[in-house]
Amino acid sequence: MPNLSVGFIGMGIMGRPMAENILDGGYPLTIYNRTISKTKELVSKGAKIANSPAEVASLSEIIITMVSDSPDVVEVISGKDGVVDGIRANSIVIDMSTISPEVERELDRLLHDRKCTLIDAPVSGGDVGAQNATLSIMAGGERESFERVLPLFKMMGNSITYCGSVGCGQLTKLCNQILVAANLIGVVESLVFAKKNHLDPSVMIEAVKGGAAGSWQLSNLGPKMVARDFEPGFMVDLLQKDLRLILEAVSLSETSILTAPLVHKLLRSAQAHGDGQEGTQALVKVLENLSGLK
Amino acid sequence: MPNLSVGFIGMGIMGRPMAENILDGGYPLTIYNRTISKTKELVSKGAKIANSPAEVASLSEIIITMVSDSPDVVEVISGKDGVVDGIRANSIVIDMSTISPEVERELDRLLHDRKCTLIDAPVSGGDVGAQNATLSIMAGGERESFERVLPLFKMMGNSITYCGSVGCGQLTKLCNQILVAANLIGVVESLVFAKKNHLDPSVMIEAVKGGAAGSWQLSNLGPKMVARDFEPGFMVDLLQKDLRLILEAVSLSETSILTAPLVHKLLRSAQAHGDGQEGTQALVKVLENLSGLK
Repeated sequence: MPNLSVGFIGMGIMGRPMAENILDGGYPLTIYNRTISKTKELVSKGAKIANSPAEVASLSEIIITMVSDSPDVVEVISGKDGVVDGIRANSIVIDMSTISPEVERELDRLLHDRKCTLIDAPVSGGDVGAQNATLSIMAGGERESFERVLPLFKMMGNSITYCGSVGCGQLTKLCNQILVAANLIGVVESLVFAKKNHLDPSVMIEAVKGGAAGSWQLSNLGPKMVARDFEPGFMVDLLQKDLRLILEAVSLSETSILTAPLVHKLLRSAQAHGDGQEGTQALVKVLENLSGLK
Repeated sequence: MPNLSVGFIGMGIMGRPMAENILDGGYPLTIYNRTISKTKELVSKGAKIANSPAEVASLSEIIITMVSDSPDVVEVISGKDGVVDGIRANSIVIDMSTISPEVERELDRLLHDRKCTLIDAPVSGGDVGAQNATLSIMAGGERESFERVLPLFKMMGNSITYCGSVGCGQLTKLCNQILVAANLIGVVESLVFAKKNHLDPSVMIEAVKGGAAGSWQLSNLGPKMVARDFEPGFMVDLLQKDLRLILEAVSLSETSILTAPLVHKLLRSAQAHGDGQEGTQALVKVLENLSGLK
């Protein structure tokens, strides 16, 4: 029986199944969510419920946060009745949200004042990965803190990488999203080109996906674009948030990046057409529109 | 013992091993190359040598061309002492070069006047694929002609796709290169971003390559960029030729494509710095330069 007490803040589409996997691993678990109804299922399985992030922290040696964006993480950690108001010395906060690397570094400094430390550990793999404990976890922070929480990561993911100091998990996640954005627009452009030139798009995908043109985006989202299946695996609005984080980090680090800003601008058109809640494969509609298709 | 007589024109880095695989398959083979020295090895293994493309055609039921660019294919097929000057009725020309889809359609019309037909069948997989008979072959043309030459394709490749009418092989290859270009710039941008933000680039690649960010370009060229290994798997100059073909086809079909022209422009900088004969991974140097690295 694991003896680390764990707190989990954020019972969204990702957080709830991740917390459930930790509970199933036998860890004593305290949970908190702004909307209390989302906590019921885990409470019925044995999780304790807390009334605030501060209370979660007071009952836990490891506190995991999984919320939407930088301001949300700042609020649950350093806001009113936040984690820092209840945290005990030698505790570790693991933020698994995808947020600004800079904000993670600020929060880590704050936690150090309480003799605590922060691990930033964003994930990829979506809700399916969260449910099946097959997430990729990219972690930054002190190495010994990382080693201490590694057994917990293994409850949630199957590819766990230590990327360096605090913020390096987020920076690695942003590299992931730079690649996702470029590969995504490549898929879209190849399909629009195929359509304008009267190729069978499914045949094209089959012909090229096994070679130098191959990518996860092509194999997984290409067929959905062909089938006009725009159900979200990963939502346009969320990729836009990550692209915004990339643009901020690019600006801070004076990096010349060309495709991520381009994809960000094109996806604004998807959002303007009301497709923000669709999957990122909806980008195909933007380029079809540009090329006079449909 | 196969009874189709085969001709092969073009003994370059791709053509020679492809012709050798056909010879090894037991087909009677006649070969031609402008530079005669490159024919010697196959002649010593039993290939006949011809003095012109016309002579190759007069001795062969299937004539394969594997040369560099559209003008080269036009020259060997319809130029002085070209294939059409020697070809017999009911022969099939297979052009395996990567050239303009429009030019293939014109050549097919010319061959139809001689009661012959054309299959355009560009490949991907590089010299290694040519040697190991593991090329991906994307073929366009009449279906029954395709079926007739399929046993020959199987001597050279392991992924053979019938893509539609004449030109559809080339169009599919261009889709392949649209994807290659987008995935390539994604890899380059993620690595430059990693470097500017003090991540270990090898750790970053390992952390993300198995998920939604994964691609052949990342797994195969990412580590070469990190190791500063710019030996050509596929040369900058050749990708530039393919990107030029994409830009022509994009213009003809009024397609809005954004990343292929961008990569084309950036690779001009690689060429201007004398890196045209390096592998396409040399693109990383262009973006490092833009970001003030090195």
